Amino acid sequence: MQITVETSEHQEMVDITDKVNKAIRESGVKEGVCNVFALHTTAGVIVNENWDENIPDDVFKAWNNAIPEHNNYQHDSVDGNAQSHILSATVSPSETLPVRNGELKLGRWQSVMLVELDGPRKRKVEITVVES
Amino acid sequence: MQITVETSEHQEMVDITDKVNKAIRESGVKEGVCNVFALHTTAGVIVNENWDENIPDDVFKAWNNAIPEHNNYQHDSVDGNAQSHILSATVSPSETLPVRNGELKLGRWQSVMLVELDGPRKRKVEITVVES
Amino acid sequence: MQITVETSEHQEMVDITDKVNKAIRESGVKEGVCNVFALHTTAGVIVNENWDENIPDDVFKAWNNAIPEHNNYQHDSVDGNAQSHILSATVSPSETLPVRNGELKLGRWQSVMLVELDGPRKRKVEITVVES
Repeated sequence: MQITVETSEHQEMVDITDKVNKAIRESGVKEGVCNVFALHTTAGVIVNENWDENIPDDVFKAWNNAIPEHNNYQHDSVDGNAQSHILSATVSPSETLPVRNGELKLGRWQSVMLVELDGPRKRKVEITVVES
Repeated sequence: MQITVETSEHQEMVDITDKVNKAIRESGVKEGVCNVFALHTTAGVIVNENWDENIPDDVFKAWNNAIPEHNNYQHDSVDGNAQSHILSATVSPSETLPVRNGELKLGRWQSVMLVELDGPRKRKVEITVVES
Repeated sequence: MQITVETSEHQEMVDITDKVNKAIRESGVKEGVCNVFALHTTAGVIVNENWDENIPDDVFKAWNNAIPEHNNYQHDSVDGNAQSHILSATVSPSETLPVRNGELKLGRWQSVMLVELDGPRKRKVEITVVES
């Protein structure tokens, strides 16, 4: 199954937990794993807290500090978005998560988030549910 | 299946390879994959060497250098553990590993490690084994 | 299935997309997921663009800037390759990817790459294909 996520900022985290759970219900799988895979080289998928909405900002601040937006990257002369590729390569475009009782088994504070690294864009996320 | 890991330091790596292999044996699966998923937003799961016990210290030193413990993160005014969330988001709370002959197929130096990023705490790790 | 990848540089990305697709075809699986797992503690697997061949160089530049090659790491007195372990622990030795119609379902610019972090070496990559 594929879901679409529209982002509105250059860097942004979008909580897709509900959409992933909907795809799991549609698959009919009760126990197994769910792979959530962004079909892009300048986006990622992570799991973290979304209750304190400042956490995504803190994550981006730390990432931009460790991996600066511009640093004479060669790809910047082509597209200007080398940092977006570097962060996507580092974070990974996917997560694989446990499924129990027909939905994601997550910790109390965990959400699944699409990480936009070069938005705003319309992003496609491929979801695969496998029974155990 | 779920396993519990008690940590004793603020930052610590705990080798859980044996516990994961035990869960695989209990599942009865001989060939496939095993997903190891920490149910927390301030912990991670990695694969690396545990033979030289200094490697976990070196990893934490490098991570703390790249992503400082405090840097005016907004979440620090709520819980004081913004760095723990940032490192968990970066490292990922899970790994998915090959299963062969009823156990993990790992390289000679590879161990599966729970990464404690805000301990000491009691951590829950969800394990799912899927047959191929 | 296991594939072998020979690297020729200390740090290098090798596009293994075709080899992974060949393994999927040999498995006979049409729909599901494919786990690609490097059996090493100083290598990784990522997904990113390989069309602009400068991107791997930019990624290594950023990683080496965030995580310096030497910084009084304790493991350097044993093997001298602490940074290789740290980067492998950070990047992860594996990716799990969607399979559709008997091959990898990737975005237009996505390639699967073995990340050599301590070469040149001969690397083994374990591939597991699971039907959904």
